[in-house]
Amino acid sequence: MFFDDLMRLKRIPRSGWITYRISRHDVESVSSHSYSVAVIALIVSETLRPTNQKVDVEEVLRMALLHDLSESLTFDISKAYLRYLGRTGAKVKARIERRAASHLLSGLQNSKLSRKFVGSLEEYSSAKSLESRIVHAADALDLLLQILEYQRMGYRKTTLEPIWRETRSKLKHCNLDVANDWMRRLEQVRRELDSTPTRKR
Amino acid sequence: MFFDDLMRLKRIPRSGWITYRISRHDVESVSSHSYSVAVIALIVSETLRPTNQKVDVEEVLRMALLHDLSESLTFDISKAYLRYLGRTGAKVKARIERRAASHLLSGLQNSKLSRKFVGSLEEYSSAKSLESRIVHAADALDLLLQILEYQRMGYRKTTLEPIWRETRSKLKHCNLDVANDWMRRLEQVRRELDSTPTRKR
Amino acid sequence: MFFDDLMRLKRIPRSGWITYRISRHDVESVSSHSYSVAVIALIVSETLRPTNQKVDVEEVLRMALLHDLSESLTFDISKAYLRYLGRTGAKVKARIERRAASHLLSGLQNSKLSRKFVGSLEEYSSAKSLESRIVHAADALDLLLQILEYQRMGYRKTTLEPIWRETRSKLKHCNLDVANDWMRRLEQVRRELDSTPTRKR
Amino acid sequence: MFFDDLMRLKRIPRSGWITYRISRHDVESVSSHSYSVAVIALIVSETLRPTNQKVDVEEVLRMALLHDLSESLTFDISKAYLRYLGRTGAKVKARIERRAASHLLSGLQNSKLSRKFVGSLEEYSSAKSLESRIVHAADALDLLLQILEYQRMGYRKTTLEPIWRETRSKLKHCNLDVANDWMRRLEQVRRELDSTPTRKR
Amino acid sequence: MFFDDLMRLKRIPRSGWITYRISRHDVESVSSHSYSVAVIALIVSETLRPTNQKVDVEEVLRMALLHDLSESLTFDISKAYLRYLGRTGAKVKARIERRAASHLLSGLQNSKLSRKFVGSLEEYSSAKSLESRIVHAADALDLLLQILEYQRMGYRKTTLEPIWRETRSKLKHCNLDVANDWMRRLEQVRRELDSTPTRKR
Amino acid sequence: MFFDDLMRLKRIPRSGWITYRISRHDVESVSSHSYSVAVIALIVSETLRPTNQKVDVEEVLRMALLHDLSESLTFDISKAYLRYLGRTGAKVKARIERRAASHLLSGLQNSKLSRKFVGSLEEYSSAKSLESRIVHAADALDLLLQILEYQRMGYRKTTLEPIWRETRSKLKHCNLDVANDWMRRLEQVRRELDSTPTRKR
Repeated sequence: MFFDDLMRLKRIPRSGWITYRISRHDVESVSSHSYSVAVIALIVSETLRPTNQKVDVEEVLRMALLHDLSESLTFDISKAYLRYLGRTGAKVKARIERRAASHLLSGLQNSKLSRKFVGSLEEYSSAKSLESRIVHAADALDLLLQILEYQRMGYRKTTLEPIWRETRSKLKHCNLDVANDWMRRLEQVRRELDSTPTRKR
Repeated sequence: MFFDDLMRLKRIPRSGWITYRISRHDVESVSSHSYSVAVIALIVSETLRPTNQKVDVEEVLRMALLHDLSESLTFDISKAYLRYLGRTGAKVKARIERRAASHLLSGLQNSKLSRKFVGSLEEYSSAKSLESRIVHAADALDLLLQILEYQRMGYRKTTLEPIWRETRSKLKHCNLDVANDWMRRLEQVRRELDSTPTRKR
Repeated sequence: MFFDDLMRLKRIPRSGWITYRISRHDVESVSSHSYSVAVIALIVSETLRPTNQKVDVEEVLRMALLHDLSESLTFDISKAYLRYLGRTGAKVKARIERRAASHLLSGLQNSKLSRKFVGSLEEYSSAKSLESRIVHAADALDLLLQILEYQRMGYRKTTLEPIWRETRSKLKHCNLDVANDWMRRLEQVRRELDSTPTRKR
Repeated sequence: MFFDDLMRLKRIPRSGWITYRISRHDVESVSSHSYSVAVIALIVSETLRPTNQKVDVEEVLRMALLHDLSESLTFDISKAYLRYLGRTGAKVKARIERRAASHLLSGLQNSKLSRKFVGSLEEYSSAKSLESRIVHAADALDLLLQILEYQRMGYRKTTLEPIWRETRSKLKHCNLDVANDWMRRLEQVRRELDSTPTRKR
Repeated sequence: MFFDDLMRLKRIPRSGWITYRISRHDVESVSSHSYSVAVIALIVSETLRPTNQKVDVEEVLRMALLHDLSESLTFDISKAYLRYLGRTGAKVKARIERRAASHLLSGLQNSKLSRKFVGSLEEYSSAKSLESRIVHAADALDLLLQILEYQRMGYRKTTLEPIWRETRSKLKHCNLDVANDWMRRLEQVRRELDSTPTRKR
Repeated sequence: MFFDDLMRLKRIPRSGWITYRISRHDVESVSSHSYSVAVIALIVSETLRPTNQKVDVEEVLRMALLHDLSESLTFDISKAYLRYLGRTGAKVKARIERRAASHLLSGLQNSKLSRKFVGSLEEYSSAKSLESRIVHAADALDLLLQILEYQRMGYRKTTLEPIWRETRSKLKHCNLDVANDWMRRLEQVRRELDSTPTRKR
């Protein structure tokens, strides 16, 4: 049943954080992450609207809410895992997730709706439309914000450095001025976080 | 800063569950809950669409994503707490949450957007429009689904009975046929959950 | 039943810590805090005794044990929450907690005892008697000690700075020389905690 | 420093519960337990007072607050551990705990107070005075109440049966009518907890 | 560095349990599981020795200790995930894990040792030698024992039924009389676990 | 039953870490630790083999797997606890653990095997044979590696300093060149961990 699969996302950890030495009790769930992505995507969309009337906010939110749905079946697949899939890794991953999503959505027992949702997921995968780029940017912004949160809790900057760099570069590829502005502000916040101890202590 | 407040929702527990003896480590975050509510609300909306073209899905999703935002400041307020506010409890709660939300949204530094969001929250509070009734129904459905999840983990039916009944009656007041149909299915699922041990064992 | 309400305090987290980015799994329970407050209050009392024979230790301990009892119903109310109650916040909070405590104590089914306990709670609230000032000081000292504990675990000094300052100023208002002496020692400990890395490393 | 040892009790788990298959994340701390014991002991004392004016409540509370203090150094010693100490187990345990307590209390840097506290602990160990019997009874009542709490969370009655029986028999040896009355009520509550599913389901 | 990869296994959860609704805080680590497998494999080997002198215990233990090593990079891959790899799933998984293991073992900077370990892993994969069948049986026995542990904690038999059946059938394919005898005893234990409530209650 | 005792080790925390202010949710289980010790001991053995053909790897692994078995009954005994056993502490501890291990192993219902395992444990205790020195070294190396892991998570170097020093000195007493080489590398890693912030920040 679709709703059981949906609820499971509350219990599925974003395991990738374990690689960066976040305590597994502090690792967020896929649901928690997807919520943040949706809100950030909403705000990016609304910020773009005055200059770009055509952004389809409903589509943005549908994509954001569904973008990690397949993890209810596949769980959060580690980066390292993909590396060992070799050159074809990204392709294999995409195929697996597409199948998982189709299976999950068939649980809706509403083939028209299921097709609509599959369409949104494919648009997200292709990462071409403005809407999908907004969701990809929101996905990256949530990661950067979460890294800052973990650092404020006491997790080490150096341990989190590789994921910060990787995400920053992903965000740049989204090519959205608003998102890039915010990224610069987050980098500023992060620098201040570091300097505080040396200054104050 | 608004985004810090948003991220905090990942760490704020839905404390009400503690009253029903859910281990505090198994209590979901406000973000996790809000994600489920948004997805359920999306599906309710899409199910209604063929017969009711006018449902504003963007509005539904905005409301669902924002409906518990104020808990980033106020945290999850226990039912018992409200009872001790006396007759004026609901009114006081509404006022507090409105102010908290305003304060949070002012962090967006975008007064037009902030007003729009406040508007959605007020519509949700008044619970009159179709859109707000959909979100209230999704809020209740997520609770019922979560109770089932907890029971499947081994938490006791009898301990969770009061919250099940209260939520079921809230859902009925939403007056949405789709939601009521699903509730009946969930009640069936719950009955089967109980009968299994005696039958099978 | 009163004892069920008492036991629940073991599971109720001191949610305020979440604001200061303590992992919710590391947040202490109300019971744990109240235990420390009672032991600290006992030691403050005994330290005062030689110079102030009149301190009523039984009263001090009763107050310390009961001072957060109402949180079994109201849960730990966040500071932010109160701010949104506006000017009348403190008054509203006091009224809510008084009612919650009365309701809880009625579960003792011993009206004489219940009245005695309500009396202790009111004396604590008014914060005038020596006994109540001792418990308020112990409440603050436990907070300062807990901040030090969290810092020793690796939580960041800067993130905890606001709660340290606020608590230190509360403690000063208790106007107890013993407590102020200890506070100065704790401040010294905290400074050394910070300097250690730079010196030793 | 004494206060560091005191704070550590918040983090020391009552490991014995692990033997009875309580999840180690749901195991209470020594501080949480000691808080409950103190409040229960206070209520037992006050209930006895009208018929037995001589009960020294201050002494009862001091004993209750200190009775597990040594576990800050020794941690919670498993029953099984003692069994392997052979016939002399209880004696060895008593000696260890006495030394640990003395060491801890020397941290108070107040030899008169330290002697007073050691006196209370010895009275508690000898279990002869009314005051010490009250604290022993409160210790057992907290265990029985905690077993009920765990059962209400979904932990199995049969897994907890041995500790229930052992504690019930300890409580009887305290020879306090009030405590025995409450025990009978708790046994009734436990029976109803079991019968509910069969009756209601 | 190899040792960092080894230590990470302590923090990697056996995520598969989440599918069966085990709280993610109660999910064991890969290290914990591998330890049990090694001890069980040791005992199976020693039990076989009197009748089968040729069992190479050193080889059995090496295999048991290394059999899930690749999960340090790939994490615990969910069953569901594999299903979505289609017919070639098992093959893809095997290839990924082989590559991950090679990469990990290259961290030993001792190519002779690394080749020896790769050899043990390949023998384990082919599941033909007596030694590898012992480790596969121990892997399954640990799962059955863990299911019993979870049921004793209060997790539901019905929720765990699918994994019990699947594992039992895997164990049978190992074709080891000793292991099958133990399985029958575990099935007996499980039946008694279920009947206890109805009999005793 | 022996297997129940074995499985319990997955849930028994290495409580000693609590003294060094590791969150009790991040404390590893005895099983997790024993797994690492066995793998490290395997690698030490294999590294020694070319120059010392006589090392009995099967014996090394048996010892490593069994060396903390008794903690299934005795739990992890705190250092502080032993100190309060006085001069005879080590002797008492050894006796308790020997008895606990015998009792546990009698659960195997195979007296020949049980005697063999007791033999391995006694050899480990006497710490004379090469095999037992390898396991003692592996035990210490796992501790040093775990300290580094905790520091990388954000736990403080200064809080962990005493256990680092104590373990380093234990390791030296094992008198194994390979182990001492690795220790020096770990010390180098630790120094770099410290210098990174000051250099990079």
